Amino acid sequence: MSKVLSDLIESLKCLPGVGPKSATRMAYYLLQRDPDGAKNLANSILNSFKHLGKCKSCNNFCETTICDLCSDSGRNNSVLCVIEMPTDLLMFEQTHSYNGLYYILMGRLSPLDGVGPKELAMNSLYERCKDENIKEVIIATNFTKEGDATSTFITELIKDLGKKISRIARGMPSGSEIEYTDTGTLAQAISERKNIN
Amino acid sequence: MSKVLSDLIESLKCLPGVGPKSATRMAYYLLQRDPDGAKNLANSILNSFKHLGKCKSCNNFCETTICDLCSDSGRNNSVLCVIEMPTDLLMFEQTHSYNGLYYILMGRLSPLDGVGPKELAMNSLYERCKDENIKEVIIATNFTKEGDATSTFITELIKDLGKKISRIARGMPSGSEIEYTDTGTLAQAISERKNIN
Ligand SMILES: [Zn+2]
Ligand SMILES: [Zn+2]
Repeated sequence: MSKVLSDLIESLKCLPGVGPKSATRMAYYLLQRDPDGAKNLANSILNSFKHLGKCKSCNNFCETTICDLCSDSGRNNSVLCVIEMPTDLLMFEQTHSYNGLYYILMGRLSPLDGVGPKELAMNSLYERCKDENIKEVIIATNFTKEGDATSTFITELIKDLGKKISRIARGMPSGSEIEYTDTGTLAQAISERKNIN
Repeated sequence: MSKVLSDLIESLKCLPGVGPKSATRMAYYLLQRDPDGAKNLANSILNSFKHLGKCKSCNNFCETTICDLCSDSGRNNSVLCVIEMPTDLLMFEQTHSYNGLYYILMGRLSPLDGVGPKELAMNSLYERCKDENIKEVIIATNFTKEGDATSTFITELIKDLGKKISRIARGMPSGSEIEYTDTGTLAQAISERKNIN
């Protein structure tokens, strides 16, 4: 096989979830069926690294110093929601039930993968939370072992700032049936039950 | 979302099997976790289109006019095996049981997808088969409807050249058990049975 082609296959393996087989399939597909798409992909990648930085306020990827969301005066700047990834922000926005600001960790604490407080730039989060406008910090890391550990760490980190700190609720998924719910989720739903009368 | 970022996500969707969700995941992964891999991918793609052409003899992708395999004097140039894709060539080579030459169609006849004899450059295959060294043409398109139709078409196309034309055998997979074989395969294995005494 030509060196140029094997380099292409090798380089496609950097994509998450792409092994040798799909990398080979993708390479031939691009060469044979979609040269324009492939060149466009190459340029988009190079373009991204040339133009994208991190928003000084929320840490999301953006082309400007402060992103559109952070500079939107229509958002409630007294609430800051801490999330793991930019995709979580998209999910939050889709609910149309949150109008505050965000801070994106770009990951979660995961000592086994070498991701500690330094790698997540927790000091930047601390600085952000100091902002006197912020009255409440909502921690919305995932309900996984690592997400929970990250939540605990952040709570400890910012507690001296005297802000209200909350965690999004854990419980039964909307539309779910008890019969088909895993016991862990059900146990949480019971222990976090709410008084309704 | 930033335009540069949404362009990147959009362009990743050109990869086969990549929808909006995985494109988004891939984009953030590249930006956050593997900038070097991403830039390397972009350059490999551009490099491929700059350097790769088609071998004048077998139609495979290569950097030279004639590829290494076609110019290898150790190969038996009296047999030409016609296959659909470059990945099929890799499979053939892995068997170590074929030492002839190849011709790669880069697809199969598929009228519904707009792939006819012209799109597959069947005239180039015809010209290739004219080579007086070639005594036998082995047709190894897939045993699918489209692969079979392609095989029939090629047989008709080259029959006036007076070469031996063969099709690789269809039958029970090696190591398979009758109980777990689909009836179509078993029926083929019966009708194509070989005399062994
Ligand atoms: Zn921002
Ligand atoms: Zn060749």
